[in-house]
Amino acid sequence: MSDADLPAEFALIARHFGPLAGPGALGLGDDAALLAPPPGRELVLTVDAMIGGVHFLPDDPPDLVGRKLLRVNLSDLAAKGAVPIGYLLTVAAARDTPDAWFAGFAAGLAQDQAEFGTTLLGGDTTSTPGPIALSLTAIGHVAPGTMVHRAGAQPGDGIWVTGTVGDGALGLAVAQGRLADPSGFLLQRYRLPQPRVGFAIARIASAGMDVSDGLVQDLGHICRAGSLTAEIDAALVPLSEPARHAGADWLPIILSGGDDYELLLAAPPTREAQLRDAARDAGIAVTRIGSFRAGPPRVAVRGPDGQPMVLARRGWSHF
Amino acid sequence: MSDADLPAEFALIARHFGPLAGPGALGLGDDAALLAPPPGRELVLTVDAMIGGVHFLPDDPPDLVGRKLLRVNLSDLAAKGAVPIGYLLTVAAARDTPDAWFAGFAAGLAQDQAEFGTTLLGGDTTSTPGPIALSLTAIGHVAPGTMVHRAGAQPGDGIWVTGTVGDGALGLAVAQGRLADPSGFLLQRYRLPQPRVGFAIARIASAGMDVSDGLVQDLGHICRAGSLTAEIDAALVPLSEPARHAGADWLPIILSGGDDYELLLAAPPTREAQLRDAARDAGIAVTRIGSFRAGPPRVAVRGPDGQPMVLARRGWSHF
Repeated sequence: MSDADLPAEFALIARHFGPLAGPGALGLGDDAALLAPPPGRELVLTVDAMIGGVHFLPDDPPDLVGRKLLRVNLSDLAAKGAVPIGYLLTVAAARDTPDAWFAGFAAGLAQDQAEFGTTLLGGDTTSTPGPIALSLTAIGHVAPGTMVHRAGAQPGDGIWVTGTVGDGALGLAVAQGRLADPSGFLLQRYRLPQPRVGFAIARIASAGMDVSDGLVQDLGHICRAGSLTAEIDAALVPLSEPARHAGADWLPIILSGGDDYELLLAAPPTREAQLRDAARDAGIAVTRIGSFRAGPPRVAVRGPDGQPMVLARRGWSHF
Repeated sequence: MSDADLPAEFALIARHFGPLAGPGALGLGDDAALLAPPPGRELVLTVDAMIGGVHFLPDDPPDLVGRKLLRVNLSDLAAKGAVPIGYLLTVAAARDTPDAWFAGFAAGLAQDQAEFGTTLLGGDTTSTPGPIALSLTAIGHVAPGTMVHRAGAQPGDGIWVTGTVGDGALGLAVAQGRLADPSGFLLQRYRLPQPRVGFAIARIASAGMDVSDGLVQDLGHICRAGSLTAEIDAALVPLSEPARHAGADWLPIILSGGDDYELLLAAPPTREAQLRDAARDAGIAVTRIGSFRAGPPRVAVRGPDGQPMVLARRGWSHF
């Protein structure tokens, strides 16, 4: 049979996703992918879904949707100190989804998998009567015993974040017409997070995760995992110029909004220099925003006025 | 913070999915799973999605939905000769999905992961305004170089199937009210496929896949991958008693309908005895339904009357 005889589903996969397939993907022409794990390494696996109308806006450019889907998963790998290997993908889309949407989506994946050194291993494409539903499983590797966990922070460890915090949540507000964004910076940060791949935090960070559901909520996870109190200083939280310009009213959103995909790390004072060196080698900014102390698992935020700050909403939940 | 302070999303995950977590899942309390690959083995990875209203019916019992989701992926691993290790899961559900749905879904997964020897490694739970969208990535392992591919069949190899063919498609017809099913057998086969985990086909089958999109279409994939013509005899295709009772009018549906999740294998005549032995050891029926010959990639079906049979629709496509 020629390709023209193939059902449309297979032709679509071959046309758009075939070029993304790496070694082990068997040209996406088999039922499974084959992966020879790097000898002597452990694998790190993560999965994140994105739903049209929930995690992205229906008219977002499809290449940015593809890039964001890959990046949010690469961000999880980066937060664990893992080096990306490959990924598997599920796309459920309406039957009348234009071919151009798939072309744009795949072009975005192609661009970013080249940038971050990963390839498509396999996937499933299906139809849905609902909004586009995407799921991506990313696989990386670490030296045995060196994955950075949520647990592991100790009293006295510093609390660090990469890049700037709050741009994602403000970008969503821009997309919803609730905030002006003359430069387009915030909207771009919401649409296209920057996974901190290449930041070699293994053996340096004592704990870590990425900030996807809001800085305070995610810091609370590290507190619970380590049975620690976190004390952070809102004035130390690194802000982009556009976030600073948004004004003080937006500070609660900045501290509790999601979609930053910066890394939130714990590091003992004795490894501060190593952390800074690793960040510099990766071209990534890191900022110390507070520290952990013994105490019940909770996050104490000192506001810009030096007084304790209470956040009505700590972060994002889907249910 | 106590669990009562956790956002509902995390409580839901802990309550329903926590008990499914295996070693490496870190109690589902981290951002990624950690997997030490079995030394000296290659990994086999597959992903399949299921959408409410497309792959299952909205009122299907949730435990059967969970079991089917896991089973269709385990079926892919079985078709590649792989031993299951673990899986990652995405659940996108409406915000008002009853807790009982999640409880039932997780109970189904718990039952089948115990039966088939696999555990949950990680996942993502999110909301959708659309139908329930599920995606599952399953991981297995094989001895290096022994994964059964779609490609690899040779002229003269026999074409084999496990179990009985067509029950899944007939079960869907039952669910749609188009066919009677006094015993309930067909509907059960549609709702709960039997993955052929434990059938040790590595180094025996020259090619293989599972029948998910229809026997003739899926056999066409093996033909294309190996540049071979397949000749099968409809009279040899193993049918269950209820399928036989449905009558000859249903034969095209039986040969082209999906959802069987039986294995479709190629094996050289010299390994027929080994194939039968391995099937017997696993308690699985295998039937030879034809053979491959040199020729253009296509599937020739001899009908019950001995004449070539033409199928209007070879299988299932989502687009």
